[in-house]
Amino acid sequence: MLTKFIIDEVVDRALAEDLSGEDLTTMATVSADTRARATAKAKSALVVCGGDVFKRVFKRLANDLSFEVCEPDGALVKPGAPIWRVEGAARPILMAERTALNLVQRMSGTATLARQYVEAVPPGAKTRIVDTRKTTPGLRSLERYAVRCGGAHNHRDTLGSAVLIKDNHIEAAGSITEAVRRAQAYAPHTSRIEIEVESLEGLDEALAAGADIVMLDNFAPAEIKTAVARAAGKALIEVSGGITLPRIAELAGQGVDVISVGALTHSAPAADISLDIQRVE
Amino acid sequence: MLTKFIIDEVVDRALAEDLSGEDLTTMATVSADTRARATAKAKSALVVCGGDVFKRVFKRLANDLSFEVCEPDGALVKPGAPIWRVEGAARPILMAERTALNLVQRMSGTATLARQYVEAVPPGAKTRIVDTRKTTPGLRSLERYAVRCGGAHNHRDTLGSAVLIKDNHIEAAGSITEAVRRAQAYAPHTSRIEIEVESLEGLDEALAAGADIVMLDNFAPAEIKTAVARAAGKALIEVSGGITLPRIAELAGQGVDVISVGALTHSAPAADISLDIQRVE
Amino acid sequence: MLTKFIIDEVVDRALAEDLSGEDLTTMATVSADTRARATAKAKSALVVCGGDVFKRVFKRLANDLSFEVCEPDGALVKPGAPIWRVEGAARPILMAERTALNLVQRMSGTATLARQYVEAVPPGAKTRIVDTRKTTPGLRSLERYAVRCGGAHNHRDTLGSAVLIKDNHIEAAGSITEAVRRAQAYAPHTSRIEIEVESLEGLDEALAAGADIVMLDNFAPAEIKTAVARAAGKALIEVSGGITLPRIAELAGQGVDVISVGALTHSAPAADISLDIQRVE
Amino acid sequence: MLTKFIIDEVVDRALAEDLSGEDLTTMATVSADTRARATAKAKSALVVCGGDVFKRVFKRLANDLSFEVCEPDGALVKPGAPIWRVEGAARPILMAERTALNLVQRMSGTATLARQYVEAVPPGAKTRIVDTRKTTPGLRSLERYAVRCGGAHNHRDTLGSAVLIKDNHIEAAGSITEAVRRAQAYAPHTSRIEIEVESLEGLDEALAAGADIVMLDNFAPAEIKTAVARAAGKALIEVSGGITLPRIAELAGQGVDVISVGALTHSAPAADISLDIQRVE
Amino acid sequence: MLTKFIIDEVVDRALAEDLSGEDLTTMATVSADTRARATAKAKSALVVCGGDVFKRVFKRLANDLSFEVCEPDGALVKPGAPIWRVEGAARPILMAERTALNLVQRMSGTATLARQYVEAVPPGAKTRIVDTRKTTPGLRSLERYAVRCGGAHNHRDTLGSAVLIKDNHIEAAGSITEAVRRAQAYAPHTSRIEIEVESLEGLDEALAAGADIVMLDNFAPAEIKTAVARAAGKALIEVSGGITLPRIAELAGQGVDVISVGALTHSAPAADISLDIQRVE
Amino acid sequence: MLTKFIIDEVVDRALAEDLSGEDLTTMATVSADTRARATAKAKSALVVCGGDVFKRVFKRLANDLSFEVCEPDGALVKPGAPIWRVEGAARPILMAERTALNLVQRMSGTATLARQYVEAVPPGAKTRIVDTRKTTPGLRSLERYAVRCGGAHNHRDTLGSAVLIKDNHIEAAGSITEAVRRAQAYAPHTSRIEIEVESLEGLDEALAAGADIVMLDNFAPAEIKTAVARAAGKALIEVSGGITLPRIAELAGQGVDVISVGALTHSAPAADISLDIQRVE
Repeated sequence: MLTKFIIDEVVDRALAEDLSGEDLTTMATVSADTRARATAKAKSALVVCGGDVFKRVFKRLANDLSFEVCEPDGALVKPGAPIWRVEGAARPILMAERTALNLVQRMSGTATLARQYVEAVPPGAKTRIVDTRKTTPGLRSLERYAVRCGGAHNHRDTLGSAVLIKDNHIEAAGSITEAVRRAQAYAPHTSRIEIEVESLEGLDEALAAGADIVMLDNFAPAEIKTAVARAAGKALIEVSGGITLPRIAELAGQGVDVISVGALTHSAPAADISLDIQRVE
Repeated sequence: MLTKFIIDEVVDRALAEDLSGEDLTTMATVSADTRARATAKAKSALVVCGGDVFKRVFKRLANDLSFEVCEPDGALVKPGAPIWRVEGAARPILMAERTALNLVQRMSGTATLARQYVEAVPPGAKTRIVDTRKTTPGLRSLERYAVRCGGAHNHRDTLGSAVLIKDNHIEAAGSITEAVRRAQAYAPHTSRIEIEVESLEGLDEALAAGADIVMLDNFAPAEIKTAVARAAGKALIEVSGGITLPRIAELAGQGVDVISVGALTHSAPAADISLDIQRVE
Repeated sequence: MLTKFIIDEVVDRALAEDLSGEDLTTMATVSADTRARATAKAKSALVVCGGDVFKRVFKRLANDLSFEVCEPDGALVKPGAPIWRVEGAARPILMAERTALNLVQRMSGTATLARQYVEAVPPGAKTRIVDTRKTTPGLRSLERYAVRCGGAHNHRDTLGSAVLIKDNHIEAAGSITEAVRRAQAYAPHTSRIEIEVESLEGLDEALAAGADIVMLDNFAPAEIKTAVARAAGKALIEVSGGITLPRIAELAGQGVDVISVGALTHSAPAADISLDIQRVE
Repeated sequence: MLTKFIIDEVVDRALAEDLSGEDLTTMATVSADTRARATAKAKSALVVCGGDVFKRVFKRLANDLSFEVCEPDGALVKPGAPIWRVEGAARPILMAERTALNLVQRMSGTATLARQYVEAVPPGAKTRIVDTRKTTPGLRSLERYAVRCGGAHNHRDTLGSAVLIKDNHIEAAGSITEAVRRAQAYAPHTSRIEIEVESLEGLDEALAAGADIVMLDNFAPAEIKTAVARAAGKALIEVSGGITLPRIAELAGQGVDVISVGALTHSAPAADISLDIQRVE
Repeated sequence: MLTKFIIDEVVDRALAEDLSGEDLTTMATVSADTRARATAKAKSALVVCGGDVFKRVFKRLANDLSFEVCEPDGALVKPGAPIWRVEGAARPILMAERTALNLVQRMSGTATLARQYVEAVPPGAKTRIVDTRKTTPGLRSLERYAVRCGGAHNHRDTLGSAVLIKDNHIEAAGSITEAVRRAQAYAPHTSRIEIEVESLEGLDEALAAGADIVMLDNFAPAEIKTAVARAAGKALIEVSGGITLPRIAELAGQGVDVISVGALTHSAPAADISLDIQRVE
Repeated sequence: MLTKFIIDEVVDRALAEDLSGEDLTTMATVSADTRARATAKAKSALVVCGGDVFKRVFKRLANDLSFEVCEPDGALVKPGAPIWRVEGAARPILMAERTALNLVQRMSGTATLARQYVEAVPPGAKTRIVDTRKTTPGLRSLERYAVRCGGAHNHRDTLGSAVLIKDNHIEAAGSITEAVRRAQAYAPHTSRIEIEVESLEGLDEALAAGADIVMLDNFAPAEIKTAVARAAGKALIEVSGGITLPRIAELAGQGVDVISVGALTHSAPAADISLDIQRVE
């Protein structure tokens, strides 16, 4: 669920970029009493995401439009499927079209990609696909929501939610043990402590220090399996970096708990959604 | 050139998403007097974009960091090339890393893709590669700047800058002729009138009506050539929709004036830039 | 049409200036259950402008007021004519009165002045009266809308919409020809290129360079006529600077395409609109 | 003195209206290393106002420009007098020109008009010229400051600062006496109570009720004199509404304490200030 | 009465602090179709304050909740009394609970404390209890409203509403007389002039200079009585600083006009209000 | 460490509440060239907090003031100790005084109270004192920072950082076991799962379900001890609600891991800090 005040802020900002002036074309060519019905349709298979955002863009320009949700967020739809409908005065519908599509195409694109990764996890495997902090600046809440609509999970939402110790932090603290100790002493007791290690020795040290989650950096497949076995019952194992769809099944098969995929938010192609606009009387 | 107040707004919003709390990890593990030097490096060939944005992210967290620009915006750099350097207190550098990279990777990604399209235009051809309004909500100014850094051009920036008449507008106005007439009567005299047509008959009507630019929708290659010839000296010819890199040379060869490419902003993969952070005394 | 999010922002800012505290007088003297009907009336002949803005100011203080629009935006009304009515709780009506009037008096003042200029153009003349960028900071969208309500046209809305080359730009580029060439190479293909010239020689150079619009700076009447003739079919002729109502007919008679009038937005006197408030049971 | 955070907000908003895109003309025609010196000059006699605002507009686009203040705010200058100078990169200077002038021309226009009213008060008279709440929405702080620069005074700044009882309030309260009593009971003890009356009887009732200031609505000259005499030592007398310059001397001669002039802020013509820009090496 | 745009701004800011991400717990454990009724109840005797704020917090998360106001702002309620009810989808109710309580507990806490001070003034005494500018940053309007709900009065709302001369100002001006004179000459005629004095001599000088209000700093009880007598009919007497409940009766007995109490806003304990949430079918 | 953009936003908002107009008193009585040195001093023993905030308030009004930090954030100082100094033009110093004190008195008050709770934990006990989400709306980041300056810890910062299951959530999910299971399945793997239970049976069920933290609601002392023993090595034990200073030692003695104290942020009395302002030449 996306909270209303977050949607409102994103939509106003997006509209302001496109409509700081007015829509010259629509005001010139379309009369005030022309009415239209617009249907957002999937042009390829996709996971729907952004119904509330779509609606808000149009409503921000005209309060008296009517809406229909044909497919809820999270639905997997076939090419040609109608997703949402909006009907009313043609002017605001035409003015809002591009902004609405820019938003929902991105959201649905991320949801669709997330679902592909989730479906690549073999049935029965407990592995979780998660996003990263590599989100589009200004759209983090929307993209994390899209990840969930695709069936994947979120990683920590901000630098203040949980601890993730990387090489520079370890170097500054002096050792894995000391870095974990400092984090345990400092962070809220509600935050898990995650640490990235580069070797099985690092893993052992992290486990001994009481890390909750260990991220494996650049481990060979055999090492990953060993790591999973050593961490069992003590910590979660996460792999990250250079993850592609074809690798998911193997990693899940090795028993990895979490696979974090930056591409979900930084490289998801926009979903192909068009808005068919018909004049109505 | 990106104006300072636009950069400031985007950077503050991006930082707020990630640092509404504090960076638990860095505050726990890195002491206040640890110093570091961080170098942004290209990990693959790319067109640099976002130097001022990169700098602003770090400066927003600490005023007394020092910066070095190794490569200016627009430079094509090889893998491994250092692009920017920042030096000073380690804490703000570590806290700003992800936000800075999220921004410049997208900007450089767009600049890099734009350049690929521009270089696909054969030498001597007058064809211009331009972006569209399919930009990331909240980042339009940055992405249009990136397009320019890649050597391409911008299309109109908002709905209020120029006229672009599409099928729904024509239908509402009754005819191509009437739609163009209304636009000429309504729009600022500084705005060109562009119209999208679906056939050579449509082109002829648009030219007769005095359109400044005609966008060809789904024309066969032979028709495009005919269209260019008919419009010569009367209007610019733009093609748009479903444009891919391999088609650029052919379209340019047909004499098309403008090719607009939505992918420049809605589907450019993030450029591969890493931040190497070293402790300094 | 003014977009809702622009109206909302202007109205909230205006109210915040006046009501950051509370309305001491109204809260002290008027009980919560007193009801009133307020009618905005023209006290002199004027062109109505700002109905949506007027309504928004009151609604921002109380959602359950009722409104009536007696005269639409753009209507020319006689002294004494009722324009808008609002009815409901007396407190919010009294609290909003000044802010609402401050806005609509300016908007109607600009619309009224614009109409006077437009009516000064002789019947049959094609000359267009346009505004300039000399707008009130913070109110540009409202003032440009008011200009349109008065029957005049807008000039470019921002520095990013079209090109207008002035003397400093020509000097920096080296020549009129070079300045126009650079602008053609740089600006979006949707933007017309306008240039200001100081002599007929400058006009000739601008026309040869392919300028779309030429602004004549301080031309004698005879020169203007010559300029119009030379530019015919090649470029539009705009005159600007020191324009007053009595000069419009002559300039239009000389065939000038565009007359830009800074006074429309920087010096329009506020229209005389009063709010008659009556107690109702 | 205008506080910095108010200036910053107004300037950012003003720039955003003009530079949401970029300055196409300047970026196309002026190279990054061109330098310029710009001098703001009075083209007619005026009272200077807005030095800090002027400076801020330019600095917001480029931090390293240098400034010179030739005339401080409040100075009366002759035609041709240089007021402020800015020197540095030509691009930001050209980009900021219009926004800077739009602001300072309005501020100086108000200061100049205020001074004319103040100077119309005969020497020795104690009458104070004050502004009203009829300010430009979004610019109230700047315009009130301009009024002070012109030597006039401010009225209450918001509805929350002081009490001003008008006819609708009196009607709602039942009588002048009751309206004043309620205001005394409700308002902060730091706020004076002002009330508008339409007759000498009203004045007497207001004085008896303990009003601090009485505003005379539409009194004949003889009545004004009587009113001043009756109020002496008990309350201040303010006249308002339809005030023009020629009436000031007479009103001041009648001993009126305060004359409030809406025109100072709603109808001051923009001061004629130009920016002469010279290239420098 | 709190204006809607002030409530909206405070509520959005408060929600953003708590819900920049999403409510993990509620989304995980409560289904979308679960419905609930929540009743805000007083857990100790208190003065109700914040009904509109309470409602807005919930409505900002879901538009279709229903509300009931059991006790209006300003009501004194007994422990256990229901104050407000909200009913509808359980998710937004649970998500808004903490933010709503954080706001109304503070507002009601201030209202309750204000009432205690007001009730400490003996019947018949004219002494007014007022707040100060020692408000919580960001919540001044809400706290001043709460003070009024408790039956107390407000002091000036900003530094721009009235004059309050303290020791540093007197020192800078040179004397009490000169400080008062400068303030009279500078401030709006609608603003009273208050000055703080440290002795009866200071009081006499302030009265002679025409101060409207004199604040006594650290006067002995006997001196206060003298001061009240000397100021009678000339100026109001205010005492401030180190005021506690037990001192109110005595100060009021001495005839002091105004007692300002910083504790009303800087140290009011949060009122004890709980939200009882019941599932409904 | 408080990030700069958070401080800036809070300070601007706080100044806007007090200085939307201007400081009438200071502008009237203090000349522009008067200089002053102001020293913030502790008037009672306190823990210092807010140095960067203090500095920012003054700098926002005048850039060229000089600052001295006598005591860093977190220092315990004696009555009379100087904490910060600011020197420069007297006007901005006087104008900023109240806003600066309002902020740092609250921050230092919270830090001081936090330290009292932390010091009440017997030496050797591992018990951690933490805050809650009962923060002042708009000031959460500042108050959480103050809690850390006092030596205590933070609880989760937002509803999106960690899971805390309460009675309504358990009821909606059907059981403790199911609520925990849903949270584990839904929440980021970086978030710990906390649940509130009302009995030892509830504790057992929560431990069996794999809760990371169990909050004991209203347990008798003997039960708390039992709960600590049962949870040892499996989950952390937190107590919350109705915590007062005298209870800390006992609770810590029972081995409780975490004591959360709402009073740290909702009821900390403002620290007594005064600003001594001296004129300097």
